[in-house]
Amino acid sequence: MATEPASFENTIDYENDPVFLLHKGGKLEVRSTIPVRNKDDLSMAYTPGVARVCTAIADNPELAYVYTWTSKVVAVVTDGTAVLGLGDIGPAASMPVMEGKSLLFKEFADLDSVPIALACTGVDEIVETVIRLAPSFGGINLEDISAPRCFEIEDRLREALDIPVFHDDQHGTAVVVLAALTNAARLIGKELSELRAVVVGAGASGVAVTRILLNAGIGDIAVSDSKGLIYEGRDGLNPIKEALARDTNKAELRGSTEEALRGAHVFIGLSGSTVQEAAIATMAEDAIVFALSNPTPEVEPDVARRHARVVATGRSDHPNQINNVLAFPGIFRGALDVRAHTITEGMKLAAAEALADVVGDDLSEDYVIPSPFDERVAPAVTAAVSAQARKEGVNRI
Amino acid sequence: MATEPASFENTIDYENDPVFLLHKGGKLEVRSTIPVRNKDDLSMAYTPGVARVCTAIADNPELAYVYTWTSKVVAVVTDGTAVLGLGDIGPAASMPVMEGKSLLFKEFADLDSVPIALACTGVDEIVETVIRLAPSFGGINLEDISAPRCFEIEDRLREALDIPVFHDDQHGTAVVVLAALTNAARLIGKELSELRAVVVGAGASGVAVTRILLNAGIGDIAVSDSKGLIYEGRDGLNPIKEALARDTNKAELRGSTEEALRGAHVFIGLSGSTVQEAAIATMAEDAIVFALSNPTPEVEPDVARRHARVVATGRSDHPNQINNVLAFPGIFRGALDVRAHTITEGMKLAAAEALADVVGDDLSEDYVIPSPFDERVAPAVTAAVSAQARKEGVNRI
Repeated sequence: MATEPASFENTIDYENDPVFLLHKGGKLEVRSTIPVRNKDDLSMAYTPGVARVCTAIADNPELAYVYTWTSKVVAVVTDGTAVLGLGDIGPAASMPVMEGKSLLFKEFADLDSVPIALACTGVDEIVETVIRLAPSFGGINLEDISAPRCFEIEDRLREALDIPVFHDDQHGTAVVVLAALTNAARLIGKELSELRAVVVGAGASGVAVTRILLNAGIGDIAVSDSKGLIYEGRDGLNPIKEALARDTNKAELRGSTEEALRGAHVFIGLSGSTVQEAAIATMAEDAIVFALSNPTPEVEPDVARRHARVVATGRSDHPNQINNVLAFPGIFRGALDVRAHTITEGMKLAAAEALADVVGDDLSEDYVIPSPFDERVAPAVTAAVSAQARKEGVNRI
Repeated sequence: MATEPASFENTIDYENDPVFLLHKGGKLEVRSTIPVRNKDDLSMAYTPGVARVCTAIADNPELAYVYTWTSKVVAVVTDGTAVLGLGDIGPAASMPVMEGKSLLFKEFADLDSVPIALACTGVDEIVETVIRLAPSFGGINLEDISAPRCFEIEDRLREALDIPVFHDDQHGTAVVVLAALTNAARLIGKELSELRAVVVGAGASGVAVTRILLNAGIGDIAVSDSKGLIYEGRDGLNPIKEALARDTNKAELRGSTEEALRGAHVFIGLSGSTVQEAAIATMAEDAIVFALSNPTPEVEPDVARRHARVVATGRSDHPNQINNVLAFPGIFRGALDVRAHTITEGMKLAAAEALADVVGDDLSEDYVIPSPFDERVAPAVTAAVSAQARKEGVNRI
């Protein structure tokens, strides 16, 4: 999912608006998985019985994974600085999205998760806070933290913690885009290495999509931000974009996105900006257009389809919806099932491959990626991620 | 509840031990309270619909209490330094107790709660971490944090946050003890102001019990720690004990607990130590003995009963069980129901009075406090706490 719109409304009919009615009281609850009906139940679940479980864990910390909920609970952590397309709305206003994310973890992968919206935005503060929280959780899903801070936060947490840390706005999007692009390339009979792509947007998702496509062996890729194409030596690049400049844009193109689109095979929009039909028309034959801004794609799908063979969006009312929910539940479940201490690049690539494979022989222009409600998706991603973790030896069971 | 025992076992039959079987996979889960069956559900609970709820909260932060789960979710926060009677076993090993606490919040007051075991023990670190977490929660229940750090942590958090902060090991115990003592005094036909009490233990619960009894108008009270009775000018008192010394022990008694017990009306043990029968025998007529260490009371209840009219313990297999679960669920529920921004001394006193009143005309030597499973308790405490919050104007609805 790319960005979502701010929805400004002067008057909301709270008592009749179905969205507000649905959200009343929040969307989550914490429940007991065991009975507590009488003092015998209580003496086992709580004192004095529980003391024996605590002592056993103190003697052997690995038992925490067996006798607490820690091993199956994910913290959904945000600072509220980049919530959907609404921007920096702060932690309190971000909670409905974080609760929604927790709900998706449960519905799609039967993982428990807890929304944690932090009242701090400094990189150091967020990193140290999450490190302090870590004993309570089996994994950390970073969410809606603005770029470029999100990159450093994730890197430092991955370094510091021995549980999976995953910034979904980056890697969830990247995995689903790679899966869809893999299938689109198959459809047009090309290898990824033969494709030249243009990514518009160098925020969290733009950078991560570029990185995973490079890791997957894309032929070449040019990235543009609000100042145009990114190339080595361009003024004012932050370290993240400097690194991108080194690894992308082999042709050293400069100027606007349109310069790069001429003859390109793939357009991937992750920016909230627009691209003109005339520019799409200059792309190579059998062009692939992923216009992922939401709710307004960079180019209208019907317009893009005049010039492109495969069109994907972030919207549920068009074919080929690029939706993170295809990736993150299975990725976390796959990692947690084998108590992986990290989520590697290999595990992300395995997730994308498994996701692409769900489409199988049904592949067509309007079906390069499964539906979010395809029940085969989460188990397939889970199995692939667990298997890859074992293959790389990052598993603990 | 006072302290609980360390249970050292060389071999645990994990596959057959009912306590370990019960704890397998933990005791909690996070569930959705709304359906997510298809893309229409998803578009309301998550994107794009959720964006409207976020925007509304950004415009009016008070709406977070209505349209997220924040208003009914309590963080159960520990650093694992004083877990039951096991001591400093660390955050991971504390989780079974914290999960148990969350389970009790749900079962007894229908509040959601999340166990948060922190990987830091410094006062500054804990305080700043909880402040950063606060936007995600409606209240903070501090748990099993060792004294004297627990006092400063609670004080600073109460100062910094506009949601209820409550260290249950202090105030939960204090409220239940006050309720039981109120009824015991009624039984022996005395006012609290006529009673002289001896509290053994100057940790979290000892200090809080002493404070609430002073606030409730106890006649006099002497407190002892491992070095004997606390009095003004005693060497090496920390600031908490210095303050206690000023406010207690009017008779300026020195020496051992036994010195103070002679002629005293009330003994309250919160220490894990023992007291001899001979010392109990020196107490006043109609003595009241609360031997609250668990599982081994300071004096055996049957022994105490030879000399005391009312005996209470922390154990479920004796009459008059002093159990925090009688207090904290209703206290938090009462505070959260009216969105109180704090839990005042008045609200704690109101909780104790309501708890004592549940016993009513059934009052007897073996029934000075209700059973934890008495279903009248939580509603009575909730109503009293809400009413008192309104009376003091600390409510927001």
